[in-house]
Parts: sequence; C-alpha cells; structure tokens
Amino acid sequence: MATDPTPGAIITLTTDFGLSDPYVASMKGVILGINRQARLVDVTHDVRPQQIVQTAFLTQAAWPFFPDGTVHLAVVDPGVGTGRRAIALETPRGCFLGPDNGVLSAALPDELRPARTPAPAVLSPGYRAYAITDPRYLLRPVSATFHGRDVFAPAAAHLSLGVPIGELGERLDTITALPPLRARRAPDGVLHGRVVHIDRFGNAITDIRADDLPAQEFAVEAAGRRVPGLVRTYAEATVLSALVGSSGYLELALRSGNAARELGLDIGDAAVLRPE
Amino acid sequence: MATDPTPGAIITLTTDFGLSDPYVASMKGVILGINRQARLVDVTHDVRPQQIVQTAFLTQAAWPFFPDGTVHLAVVDPGVGTGRRAIALETPRGCFLGPDNGVLSAALPDELRPARTPAPAVLSPGYRAYAITDPRYLLRPVSATFHGRDVFAPAAAHLSLGVPIGELGERLDTITALPPLRARRAPDGVLHGRVVHIDRFGNAITDIRADDLPAQEFAVEAAGRRVPGLVRTYAEATVLSALVGSSGYLELALRSGNAARELGLDIGDAAVLRPE
Amino acid sequence: MATDPTPGAIITLTTDFGLSDPYVASMKGVILGINRQARLVDVTHDVRPQQIVQTAFLTQAAWPFFPDGTVHLAVVDPGVGTGRRAIALETPRGCFLGPDNGVLSAALPDELRPARTPAPAVLSPGYRAYAITDPRYLLRPVSATFHGRDVFAPAAAHLSLGVPIGELGERLDTITALPPLRARRAPDGVLHGRVVHIDRFGNAITDIRADDLPAQEFAVEAAGRRVPGLVRTYAEATVLSALVGSSGYLELALRSGNAARELGLDIGDAAVLRPE
Repeated sequence: MATDPTPGAIITLTTDFGLSDPYVASMKGVILGINRQARLVDVTHDVRPQQIVQTAFLTQAAWPFFPDGTVHLAVVDPGVGTGRRAIALETPRGCFLGPDNGVLSAALPDELRPARTPAPAVLSPGYRAYAITDPRYLLRPVSATFHGRDVFAPAAAHLSLGVPIGELGERLDTITALPPLRARRAPDGVLHGRVVHIDRFGNAITDIRADDLPAQEFAVEAAGRRVPGLVRTYAEATVLSALVGSSGYLELALRSGNAARELGLDIGDAAVLRPE
Repeated sequence: MATDPTPGAIITLTTDFGLSDPYVASMKGVILGINRQARLVDVTHDVRPQQIVQTAFLTQAAWPFFPDGTVHLAVVDPGVGTGRRAIALETPRGCFLGPDNGVLSAALPDELRPARTPAPAVLSPGYRAYAITDPRYLLRPVSATFHGRDVFAPAAAHLSLGVPIGELGERLDTITALPPLRARRAPDGVLHGRVVHIDRFGNAITDIRADDLPAQEFAVEAAGRRVPGLVRTYAEATVLSALVGSSGYLELALRSGNAARELGLDIGDAAVLRPE
Repeated sequence: MATDPTPGAIITLTTDFGLSDPYVASMKGVILGINRQARLVDVTHDVRPQQIVQTAFLTQAAWPFFPDGTVHLAVVDPGVGTGRRAIALETPRGCFLGPDNGVLSAALPDELRPARTPAPAVLSPGYRAYAITDPRYLLRPVSATFHGRDVFAPAAAHLSLGVPIGELGERLDTITALPPLRARRAPDGVLHGRVVHIDRFGNAITDIRADDLPAQEFAVEAAGRRVPGLVRTYAEATVLSALVGSSGYLELALRSGNAARELGLDIGDAAVLRPE
C-alpha cells in the first residue's frame, strides 16, 4: 500500500457524467477517502455521452496546461463491465487513467498513434501502460456499471500517493489509440478536416492545425458555405471567419453570434480548407 | 468559538441552486472565510427546484463514498425564512446540515425512517440532532431568503473546525424524515416502485432495490411498456432493459439511447416489477 | 519572481466560458502550475456570453462573502487580443483581474463609478490599478484568443504567491467602470429600474436596492403587469410578489413557479416601482 504520500497531488477528471448526477461526487469521495490532500480539478463532465473523439480533443486542449506529474482521469466508458481493459498510462508529463477505448489517445505523441483508424498503439520508451486489476487498489466490490468510482478513482488516488504504477496490474504492450487530430492533406494542398468540437460561443473547432495552414490565402468550406480565413481575434470576426483558436486548431467563428448554428454545423461534419 | 482546527476537513454541498447564479459561490466564500483549509466538494447543484425526494436519492448515492467525518450540506429549502427549523445531524459517518424538511433523510438508517409518509423520526443512539440557532455560528444579519449562505454554510464551517455540534443550538428529539427509498412489496411478490431519478444518460432509476429482486425472471412495467430484466452491463442493454445500477437500485436503460425519453418516463412515475 | 508563497490563497473565477469546454480547466492548470496550493473557487462560468452588466451583478453578489485578500478573476472578454488593456486592481478587500471593459466595476465603491454610462473611473486611495504586461508573469506565447489562460490566470497565480501587484506592469490612473447597479429615482419617487439577472428559480432580480424602497406600500410594473410588494420570504410569494433577495436587491418571485417566465421578462427589461 501507499506509504509515500505526495500532499496536494493534482487529479483531473474528464467524463460524460454531467453535473446533475451523483457520479462525479462519488468518484471524488472515493479519491479523498484514499488521499485526503488530493487537489481535484474538473476538466469537463459534459462530453457528449460516449463520444471518444470529442474526449480526446477536450483533454488534449487542457492536459498540457497542468503541471508535470498530474494524474488525469478520463472516464467515457460505454463498455463498462465488459471485457475492455481499464488502463493506467505513464508518460513523461503525467499519468493517465481510463478505459482502453481510445480515450487516452491525447496522452500519446502523434508518432505513436495510428494513421487512419483506431488501432493498438505500440508504446515507446517513456510511455508505459498497465492494466488496472490489483484488488488492493480497487473499491470492493467492483460494480459492473461504474468503474469511474470503483476502479479509476481509487487507482488514481493510490497513484497520487506514490504507489508505483507497475503495482496496479500487468504491463501492456499496446493501448487502443485514435489517429492524431489532424486534417488529411491531399496532393493538391487541400486539407480535408472535420469539426471536432463546438464550444459555448458557437465556435466550430476543426482538426485543421495551425501548423498546417498554407502560406497563401485560403477559405474553408463547411456546410456548403465558404468561410474566408484568416482573422486574428474574435473581435475581427464581424462576419463568419476562420481563426486559430487557443488550442492551435482552426475554428470558424462569428463575433456576437454563433458560427456553428449559423452554418448548421455539428461535430463530425466536414470542413475543407482550399488555398486560393 | 472554534479553537481546534482540523485542516482539510471535507464539506460537501448539495443544492438546487444551479451553477449559473452566485449562490453556491457565496456559500463557499463564507465557509472559506471561517475555515480556510476546508475541502469543498460539490455533489450536485442541479436538484430539480425544491424536490426533496430527489435530493434524498442523490445524496444517498454519494454520501457513503466520502470519508467518515465529512460534513454534508443539503440545502433544498422551499421554506427558507419561515418557521421550519435549520438542523445539524450527527451520525456515526459524519455530520449533515440542512432544513428540517426531509432533505437529510438519507443520513438515517431505514429503521429510523417512517413507513409510508414523511413524519418525525425519533433518533436512536449514534444519531443526535440540533437546531442551528446560536448567533455565534451564523452570518449576521441572517437574511430571510438565503439560509444556505447565512446559516448552513457558517455552521458547517464551524463544525469542520471542531466546534462541538451541541453548541449550535438546542437538542432535538426528532427530525423530519421521508420513508426509505424502497418499492412496496405486495403479497403476490409484485414490487410497486417508482422512478426517483433520471440520469444524464436517460437511465430511469427506480426505488426497487437489488436486495429485493426475485430469484426468478421478472419484467418491469413502466409507462405501459414491459421491460425485461436483468442484464448486467449497459453494453448489454441493446434493447430497453433493466439492470442494477451503481447505487444498488434497479434502473431501466438503453444502450446508445435514452430509456426515459423512449418510455416517456419522468420522476415519480410508477415502475412495477412482476416475477414471471 | 515570487518568493513569498502564501499557501492556500483563494482565487475565484467568473467567466462566460461554460463548463463544457476545456477553457476553465486550462486556466486552473496554469494557476496550479504556478501556485500548487491555490484554492480555486468557481463563482460561475455561465455568464451569458459577453454580458458585462450581468457579470458585474453576479460578482457583486459573491465577492463580498470571500475573505479579504482573495484574488478574483473575471474574464468576460469580447475584446480579447485587441488593444483593450488587461488589468489588475488592488482594493482594500482583495485583488481583481480582468479585461478593462467594465467587468471589474463591482470591485469599486459607488462613488468611484460613473453616474450614467460606462466611463473611465478615477481611482481613489486604497484602489490601485495596473496593466498586466510584464512577460515574467504571462504564459509564453500569449495567444490572441485566450487571455484568461495566457494572461489573467498566470498573473493571478503570481499575485497569490506574493508578487507585488506593481510588478505586473505600468500603473493606471483610471479603469473602465459601469454605473452603480441602482435604479434611477425620479422626482415623483418612482424608481426606474431594470432586470439585471434571472436566477434558476425564475426570480427576476432588479437593480432596485432595498435601501431605496419607499416607506409606504408600492407595486412594481414589469412586462405590463403589476406586481405588489413586499413579502418577506419565497414561501409567501403564493402569487407574483416582490421581495428583497439575498443580494439586497428587489426581485420578482413566484413560489413553486417561475416569475420571469410567467411575466415574459428578460435581462434588461424595465421594472418600475411606484409608491401607492
């Protein structure tokens, strides 16, 4: 058991549980029962139910801003209680826990992630994954319906106290990963992207990276409309405009309006960038 | 006044205040002004306005997972400013504060709760209740409209610092309690239950306890439909199904769907289990 | 750099970012990366997008209940990335950080605020404002779209560690302020107010102050209806009624109902109090 407490370890939580149910609080109660000093930070609990790609985007946007050594929980888990593995992943920046369904993809560098479709990612040095199975680090009994509370919360709390990650269970060679969030570049320079998140302001965030933007002028086609790029600030988006958002991705924005609603865009819809 | 600080005491908050208003933050400010080290955990602030039965369910699902000694605040308080008492209840597991309208019922064991309708519960050893009246432990002045901030928050903060609960006010022999959340069993073995909560995934949670399930097969009738039991995981609920949820109650679920919406079920609706 | 840590300094956050996006968590990650001991408290993240008057009301209702020395962040920032200044304001009660668009108005006493329309407020002793510009206290690089994360969060964290506010940047003689939230009194004693917030219960909160209420009976006209005053508690509001809410402002309420919906009232609508 843990003997090396790290007071004030930070544990973040990302789920699709919402804030109207007792689920998130149950997880926090379990964590604090094990590590009274843990610092709990909600990333969001409003992931659309069981949307793993959106989870990967949201966590990717938040995780890099937490201190090294943070323990990140991501519980979007349609397969809870089935044979899917519960995993803990150690990286150079922190530990990540969640079901083995791709939800931890954002913790992996692009080069470890599959090119096109979700697939097992072979881990490289610096990245080690373990199944979470040792009953010493689980709630007893483990329910078939809520591993956030019974598996991930206690395992995260024990990790935050200094339990070596290797004690949680057997080492895994691969974990399930999603392709990098990055629009596909066609030979003609066109970027074939899609909408990965719509934020509260109606900004439609795409998987087109700032790094991939062409040097010349361009426009984005989405929902049959042409949105010109590039403005620098939301204040300049007096008409539908493309700008680079705070996560380094291109987004479609409309000042004092709601770009996604104006365009009729939803998560998953295409966004195609053409140099002009 | 408090002289025996317990750094890092946990205080949970359950209210119907929502998160769009300044009410919850005001309570937290008051608490931190008295106990700077308190650990504040939101259970939920999305109780339906003034729904005491739902509050009892939600708190019952979360409280047991917090460490012993936690101070639990439950402020769903349609009678604020009237003659209803403000109470603090000490139990073997922690302290519970709220208005005396049944909202603290989940802190009491079944045997202390009334059989059929809300009624005064006589407390047994291990359970002591007090009115919260001593002005040393209240904000001054106490408003007529917000006792969460002016009464319950400061009293909770003082308790978390070690103030003996008996200093808050006069001892009470009884507190208002709701009947246990438990479907009524008819002589023919039929369980007459109802929906007590609908979660974000659309799972319709009933008051039928896992402990009360028959050994043989059964089905649940709700909203004029027959839902077969029993599957073990959400993933198996490929059609409308009954399963035992993480709080130990039967719920109606639909994988990749919304069971409550599909059935047209709302909180309070009947759910009847018949052995087959 | 900071050398005088104040463990457990409280930092509050008020934004229009919502809780579905990664924005609030990113701010918290940045803060905890600088001050691991900071106590983070959400006031609300549900300010209507870019509504500065509502922000001023919400913060005014919460800030006074936090301990002296608290650092308050208010990031409702339609002008992010433009020439608008980022400011830190020291007051006798705490430090306030936000864009210079009026969002910090509630930190100023009435006498410093303009009479009628948003205008520069000249600061008096006890109130000192600084531009936040020193790159030592900013994230690098500073984006053009998210100063909550890149400017206000790190500056707040450094302040909470004891960095003198004067190190953040140049001193400012004035900051932008809104008029006090206070209905205008006409010569005939009529108070010409408006709705500044609608809470989760449907209470329509006006800018008519309790201090300004007439000694005689009165009624409030709103949305073409006449609402009699004054009841003391929500329980007494069995019909549409006026009462003094917990922030010291008159509000229109309806027990077991939703006054704003019943009246068809929205933020900004007129509420006129006439003595009778």
